[in-house]
Amino acid sequence: MKAEKISELTIDRLSVYLRCLDFLINNGVKQISSQELASQFNLNSAQIRKDLAQFGEFGVRGVGYSVGKLRDCLRHILGLDRPHKIGIIGAGNLGMAIAEYEGFFGTNYNVVALFDIDPAKVNRTTKRGIPILDVKRLAEEIQRLGINIIVLGVPASVAQSVLDQVVAVGIKAILNFAPMQFYVPEGVTLKTVDLTVSFDSLSHSLVVNELEVEIK
Amino acid sequence: MKAEKISELTIDRLSVYLRCLDFLINNGVKQISSQELASQFNLNSAQIRKDLAQFGEFGVRGVGYSVGKLRDCLRHILGLDRPHKIGIIGAGNLGMAIAEYEGFFGTNYNVVALFDIDPAKVNRTTKRGIPILDVKRLAEEIQRLGINIIVLGVPASVAQSVLDQVVAVGIKAILNFAPMQFYVPEGVTLKTVDLTVSFDSLSHSLVVNELEVEIK
Repeated sequence: MKAEKISELTIDRLSVYLRCLDFLINNGVKQISSQELASQFNLNSAQIRKDLAQFGEFGVRGVGYSVGKLRDCLRHILGLDRPHKIGIIGAGNLGMAIAEYEGFFGTNYNVVALFDIDPAKVNRTTKRGIPILDVKRLAEEIQRLGINIIVLGVPASVAQSVLDQVVAVGIKAILNFAPMQFYVPEGVTLKTVDLTVSFDSLSHSLVVNELEVEIK
Repeated sequence: MKAEKISELTIDRLSVYLRCLDFLINNGVKQISSQELASQFNLNSAQIRKDLAQFGEFGVRGVGYSVGKLRDCLRHILGLDRPHKIGIIGAGNLGMAIAEYEGFFGTNYNVVALFDIDPAKVNRTTKRGIPILDVKRLAEEIQRLGINIIVLGVPASVAQSVLDQVVAVGIKAILNFAPMQFYVPEGVTLKTVDLTVSFDSLSHSLVVNELEVEIK
């Protein structure tokens, strides 16, 4: 397993393959070829073979991949065979939306706490019973609850300062939505979900026909 | 301009380059080479040259790209030189978070309405004054307000049915967060933001050192 050479884009694709394999397992499929996997989920079969070849021999020529074995391996590579405890900083609309995210159901991702500065929110719970804690107790609660992933659900104006605080407590994995550049120390992974990129892609899809006319 | 051959991944990268160019313009930079652009924003210079070459000759050997000219061209390709009117279906935490998204500031993306089924929310406005309308009036309000992009901020259980409704009114661009497969008619672009992929990437970053030990 050549773990150290895996690029971020490959990891993102493994995550997508895993979602497809979960779907197949739920539908009783035990073997699948890269071609079938590709055509069923609108993926690229050559890319699938190249990505998976990095982790050893999964496919049997003429038979395809063992869906269960491949799923277990991808779960291991992605670290999904262990629990993850998520803390969300900011119990505003964004933080609450992540806390309620349906994609966590049936996974090892567990949102264990939200943190906020607002006394009207602190010491309450979300509809599903997740506690909203005082951000002043951030350091001790991260330790006590065993939080290993932090979501920044705070305005861009305070995001760097909050990031610095959680890094100081030893957090190594942070998800961010604020549209800005961060200083991130080595050894810490910051993943930014930039919604503008998704909207730009939609915007482009709306004008693509006009662009084609321009070049004719 | 070979617009019809641009892949979704290329479009996503153009969107990232544009963000970098905006930053440079704000800092008074007028010319930049692909190498400088790459090193300043942690991008790949060969990829930048390859992506931009699709749209004509921007670079001058030894001088680099004209930042302003390149920015204008990317804005045109991405359809950002015209206004976009966004409607959000579901005025829950997710819908409200998108309505407040800081990344829209200073762009041509304008959230013009949210839609909800809950009488307690309908006919109110968000903090910034965006109206929350009755989802029963969805079809007529989409027409009246000139909405061209819809965000699905509804539970997965009703997402397909809501998608079908907006497609029936003529909407061609939809952003979705629900972790599910959709049936999408031809000519309609659905972009899904799958947060699990981002969390899986963070999860992998937390175990990558252990994976390296396993292979030694």
